[in-house]
Amino acid sequence: MTSASTNPDTLSYEQAGVNYDLIDPLKVSAQRAAAATAVHLGGHGFTEVAASRGESAYVVDVGPFYLASIVECLGSKVLVADAMAELTGRSWYEGIAQDTIAMAVNDLITVGATPLVVQAYWAAGGSDWFGDKARAQALVAGWKKACDTCSVAWGGGETPALAGIVEGDRIDLAASCTGIISPKSRLSVGDDLAEGDAIVLLASSGIHANGLSLARKLVERLPEGYLTEVEPRLSYGEALLAPTILYSPVTEALAKAGIAMKYCANITGHGWRKLLRHPSAFTYRIEAVPPVTPVLQFIQKHAQQDDREAYSTFNMGAGFAIFVKAEDAQRTVEVAQAQGIAAIVAGRVEAGPKQVVIEPIDVTFGTEDLQLR
Amino acid sequence: MTSASTNPDTLSYEQAGVNYDLIDPLKVSAQRAAAATAVHLGGHGFTEVAASRGESAYVVDVGPFYLASIVECLGSKVLVADAMAELTGRSWYEGIAQDTIAMAVNDLITVGATPLVVQAYWAAGGSDWFGDKARAQALVAGWKKACDTCSVAWGGGETPALAGIVEGDRIDLAASCTGIISPKSRLSVGDDLAEGDAIVLLASSGIHANGLSLARKLVERLPEGYLTEVEPRLSYGEALLAPTILYSPVTEALAKAGIAMKYCANITGHGWRKLLRHPSAFTYRIEAVPPVTPVLQFIQKHAQQDDREAYSTFNMGAGFAIFVKAEDAQRTVEVAQAQGIAAIVAGRVEAGPKQVVIEPIDVTFGTEDLQLR
Repeated sequence: MTSASTNPDTLSYEQAGVNYDLIDPLKVSAQRAAAATAVHLGGHGFTEVAASRGESAYVVDVGPFYLASIVECLGSKVLVADAMAELTGRSWYEGIAQDTIAMAVNDLITVGATPLVVQAYWAAGGSDWFGDKARAQALVAGWKKACDTCSVAWGGGETPALAGIVEGDRIDLAASCTGIISPKSRLSVGDDLAEGDAIVLLASSGIHANGLSLARKLVERLPEGYLTEVEPRLSYGEALLAPTILYSPVTEALAKAGIAMKYCANITGHGWRKLLRHPSAFTYRIEAVPPVTPVLQFIQKHAQQDDREAYSTFNMGAGFAIFVKAEDAQRTVEVAQAQGIAAIVAGRVEAGPKQVVIEPIDVTFGTEDLQLR
Repeated sequence: MTSASTNPDTLSYEQAGVNYDLIDPLKVSAQRAAAATAVHLGGHGFTEVAASRGESAYVVDVGPFYLASIVECLGSKVLVADAMAELTGRSWYEGIAQDTIAMAVNDLITVGATPLVVQAYWAAGGSDWFGDKARAQALVAGWKKACDTCSVAWGGGETPALAGIVEGDRIDLAASCTGIISPKSRLSVGDDLAEGDAIVLLASSGIHANGLSLARKLVERLPEGYLTEVEPRLSYGEALLAPTILYSPVTEALAKAGIAMKYCANITGHGWRKLLRHPSAFTYRIEAVPPVTPVLQFIQKHAQQDDREAYSTFNMGAGFAIFVKAEDAQRTVEVAQAQGIAAIVAGRVEAGPKQVVIEPIDVTFGTEDLQLR
């Protein structure tokens, strides 16, 4: 990451405790081993969609349609929910459930898939976790509600009690999601992404579920911790816990409207550097940025991050990017808005070196800023 | 559970720290909420296979074939691997990887599915976990090898570092698996299970990955802990870490041989009580039991469990049950053996009250012994 600030008071993601240097060699080795297993699909009469390797969901051609699948972790947002439960006496797990499903569903839809089945993975530090009925019921209710929003079937799941692995009174939440891409023309792994295509950005609700390590570390700097007000009557903790927006209603509505998504980027870890996800060399020119949600403005200010650091870490108001033909851009915005989700035509794909140029804030990220493959 | 022994020295599963009474109300409430989401499939033109609710994998009718999916947790077997790594200086994670995939694949195949894609969920207590290269590479190598054995594609996965949720230097391992049931006649959710059908039991390799809480607790009673010998030159720890058998090569070979599985039970938690899984009222009469692997004999002896307690907790030499027509029973055994997995025709399905009668050990489990739905 080349976005390290020279301001000694800046709180960066690495300082917040996540060391990608240690994780990445394993990832590379796992990705190589995984790629070598694709050959097995041939034995069943199928093939992988090779372009989906390195994308947010894995896609297999099973004949009449494509099959997409994924497993995703919520991460450390539960620690904010637990801290806020102590401070406020109420459970925040209904929103946490939505966050967890959003992690899986919002990745699955990037390839053009309709999510069909979600499985729950709720690994608690001990049986006692499930003994707090209000919290457990909030998790169930939120999970159900998020499935309803995404029109997905909750297939089942796993609720292990893992004393000695998961910490006492904590829970490790994840979701797997399976879907199909049908008709096959809905596949959006970016093979036809071209110069002139438009970049539409869908609004985020707040921090979503990425950058929480830093957001939690920041609490130490705040006078009233999680209860510090981001704006009148909105505490930092509550603002952080705004549930991640579920974007599948938008992608499904686009399909129904006959608008083809060429490519998508779920803006999660690495913030706007995720706009560089597509493997080809294109320049992504951003001429308009969405409003930054108050909690992210607040974090940027208190963590003393410059725009480069902030946009390379957080979603900064844009939770999901959809790449469409230029003539479909405005309708894409309208379809999103009809689903209650703000959207803007933010920029376009150009010929040129691989970079994202965010003109309104004068920040450019290049290939050295994102190594996902 | 009515299998509680009256011997005060007996170590039971509840004493080992897993309290199902706390988990079960959540499970029931989650199952109800989940069942109510099935209606969403209709909006996509599909339907759920209702009989798969409560089974080991969830099944959706997507037209040309059925889609099956699942997420499964390894559980606490990693704690044995970690303890043995300290004692022996070597990594045991290659086998652990196989165990994790087995949890998912062996459940998925119960409904007749061909596993196609596995996703890895490796949630570590911190980035440092991945810094131990020998251990990380063993995990990768074992994962790849298990995918090869099952002819499944490793689609990708998630490797979060979850400090504050997962304990330091521990890892929470899970796998999701997606497959299809094709032709649709391979569906084996038990709707045609009938009086006279045969029960074939496939051999286990040891404890597999269920009952580990008890097995770990037992270490306190052993003179040399994990290094206590189960048999000459085989330590208790090493015996426990025998990887779970992957049964999908057998179920795929049965399909190729034209043998229809009517129903399956993956014998995991609750031991042989899992033979009661099918929702209908049948009596399952077992006239032959497989040899008990040495590590399970050892546990039964040192935990001072009677047969009722042991068979209600552990697989006792039988890792997977396949229910077939009586005339297919012997060929089913032969197909399994051709895949290198010992098998026996153990008994049959009879009209009568819902119970499993294990004649050789004079133990009967009734409906009060297993409440999964």
